[in-house]
Amino acid sequence: MVFSPDISSTPIVQKYGGSSVATPERIKAVAERIAKRTKKAKLAVVVSAMGKTTDELIALAYRISEEPHPREMDMLLGTGEQISAALLAIALNDLGVRTKSVNAFQLRITTTQDHSNARILDFDLDVLLKTFKNHDVVVITGFQGVTLEGDLTTLGRGGSDTSAVAVAAKLQCRCEIYSDVPGVFTCDPRVYPKARKLDYVTYDEMLELASLGAKVLHSRAVELAKKYGVKLYCASSFTEERGTYVVEKLPEWLEQPVVTGATIDTKQVEATIMNIPNRRLLTDIFEAVARANLNVDMISIVEGDRGFHLSFTVVEDAARHLRLVVESVLKDTEGWEMYLDDSVAKLSVVGVGMRSSAGVASRFFSILAKKGIPFKTVTTSEIKISCLIPREDAQRALQTIAEEFKL
Amino acid sequence: MVFSPDISSTPIVQKYGGSSVATPERIKAVAERIAKRTKKAKLAVVVSAMGKTTDELIALAYRISEEPHPREMDMLLGTGEQISAALLAIALNDLGVRTKSVNAFQLRITTTQDHSNARILDFDLDVLLKTFKNHDVVVITGFQGVTLEGDLTTLGRGGSDTSAVAVAAKLQCRCEIYSDVPGVFTCDPRVYPKARKLDYVTYDEMLELASLGAKVLHSRAVELAKKYGVKLYCASSFTEERGTYVVEKLPEWLEQPVVTGATIDTKQVEATIMNIPNRRLLTDIFEAVARANLNVDMISIVEGDRGFHLSFTVVEDAARHLRLVVESVLKDTEGWEMYLDDSVAKLSVVGVGMRSSAGVASRFFSILAKKGIPFKTVTTSEIKISCLIPREDAQRALQTIAEEFKL
Repeated sequence: MVFSPDISSTPIVQKYGGSSVATPERIKAVAERIAKRTKKAKLAVVVSAMGKTTDELIALAYRISEEPHPREMDMLLGTGEQISAALLAIALNDLGVRTKSVNAFQLRITTTQDHSNARILDFDLDVLLKTFKNHDVVVITGFQGVTLEGDLTTLGRGGSDTSAVAVAAKLQCRCEIYSDVPGVFTCDPRVYPKARKLDYVTYDEMLELASLGAKVLHSRAVELAKKYGVKLYCASSFTEERGTYVVEKLPEWLEQPVVTGATIDTKQVEATIMNIPNRRLLTDIFEAVARANLNVDMISIVEGDRGFHLSFTVVEDAARHLRLVVESVLKDTEGWEMYLDDSVAKLSVVGVGMRSSAGVASRFFSILAKKGIPFKTVTTSEIKISCLIPREDAQRALQTIAEEFKL
Repeated sequence: MVFSPDISSTPIVQKYGGSSVATPERIKAVAERIAKRTKKAKLAVVVSAMGKTTDELIALAYRISEEPHPREMDMLLGTGEQISAALLAIALNDLGVRTKSVNAFQLRITTTQDHSNARILDFDLDVLLKTFKNHDVVVITGFQGVTLEGDLTTLGRGGSDTSAVAVAAKLQCRCEIYSDVPGVFTCDPRVYPKARKLDYVTYDEMLELASLGAKVLHSRAVELAKKYGVKLYCASSFTEERGTYVVEKLPEWLEQPVVTGATIDTKQVEATIMNIPNRRLLTDIFEAVARANLNVDMISIVEGDRGFHLSFTVVEDAARHLRLVVESVLKDTEGWEMYLDDSVAKLSVVGVGMRSSAGVASRFFSILAKKGIPFKTVTTSEIKISCLIPREDAQRALQTIAEEFKL
């Protein structure tokens, strides 16, 4: 991407999620918020589809076909953001704010050809800068792009966050992500009501939290923000409450906690494949799974009498697809077996402070042991510890960990 | 427009109206019909938005603004056709028919800048021909276009018909218009159950019928078809029943009826402006009304003691707008008055046979007189006679005329 901002004052990028623009009334409320900000800066506003629109369009497609054509599916889904972008532009113009909406064709948001999971290659900054000359707000359809051949694509669930960060990266400005969640919490307040909202969180922590199922920010958006140093701010579009900044390093004055947050993910299943005869097939499985775009985690490999036993977790929705992928690799192999276990949950703690603090792992495991919560398949990174626990213990485990690390 | 068809066999253009693609089930049924036809020819299929989608989108916009920004309104409304085009392409691909949907950006359908009432300037035939190389069906979003500046536009109500004819004109092929109506009738079968479906109707007759309120075909589409000699065929998408051909001249073997059809339009109001002091202001009113894109009909001008009395009809929906337009012209004039009368209906008979048959007008008026139906403000063309009658007599008048002319 080429950076060439050419605008009198630094603009701001804002992104509003589906629940923030779910109804005409909410769209008008968002327009009021935006209108206030235009006194000080030009705004590029990225929007998601209204409320459940995307789900409804998907349901419509599945009433027609069990396996809707991917290219046409994106053609269909791209309409959701165009509707909300146009409606928000109508609301803003009504308030006297000079506003224009642009879709992926107009902004020339080019992406890879991976329908339903495309990656942004570039967009035409000149279109944006030219539009800013006569407009104070440009409303941009999130989630969508266009291939070099001119086909409409979508960026995958939560892709509007990525759209917003890409725009902010090129404008070299901050990016504010508004949703129905007032910021990033130490852990899920629905499970642990004493959870605190964080004022700051690092990109690395946010990446772990996002991929662990904290729904505030799409992890690809955080990766992109980290890569281009885009300062992120997550807050609620419903209140004026202060949100959370996502930054490279925590401010010096802030006392660094050892553990910043904890998450529990109950949407994972553990797949176990027994008796894989050799390492070659083991590698083949990983390659096939990667080609199928299935993210695996919590990998464990044990060598037994009749070959290797492999287990890992995938999101529940991918389980059926996973089975087909594994079967295609092992179709000429005898004696292998595969199980899917949906009685597990993934418990994790995350914190940049763990880099410099020893003993977090031992505190983590000993408190689980003390409370009688069995754990297995542990994975760790510099700033994260995860383990699988019984799903029935999920809430209690998160509460225990939150108490222990004073989240 | 430049004509350069370059495809092995002549393709066919089909257009499906909103009721034909109103539900997933109907879309699948339409896909089955199309699939059968692909054995013999490639198809360019133009679609309207599903059922009431456009009305729903308009209602959504008006929940946000009393006067939605025209450019953004088109951005909003353009999504309806993209949804139906994508869904139809999904259904066709599911049947194994190689299909791709294209929107106005992709097909480069350029239009004038008149938002909500744009006119097609051109489209990129090469995109269509290139797509036909690897696909048997190209589904095209009707109703929409893009300005040279890249803004989305819409062609006005019924504009999908015009899109279809424009595509057929450049492909130099026939154009089939499918809706929930099985063809063109001598008059409205709901009012006169003995009405007959016509096998053939001329462009000129269809133009009069379309502009008189027969809902089968958009009159701009008929104009375009006449201009480029596109053979039109109107039929139901729900049955296999034979429809109506719209052609330049009726086949020689067909006995030409004197009157082909009759219509009654009860959606018109008569505006009367009294005491316009001079001809200059009279002209100014017509110019202002034309600039405001209001179609007037049934014009009558009478000179009185205090100036001219002008009356004409406009569609009911335009009445409020008309009042503002007239007020702006006459704001410095004294003594003028304006009335709107919504108790009128416009009764018309149409037929190319009238060119060579005398006495149609006298039969028309004497039967009305005989039945005690008062009429006023008569207008005639070579192939049409219209007059205003009391709205309360509308149905009875149509039945009387239908009996008289054996429709």
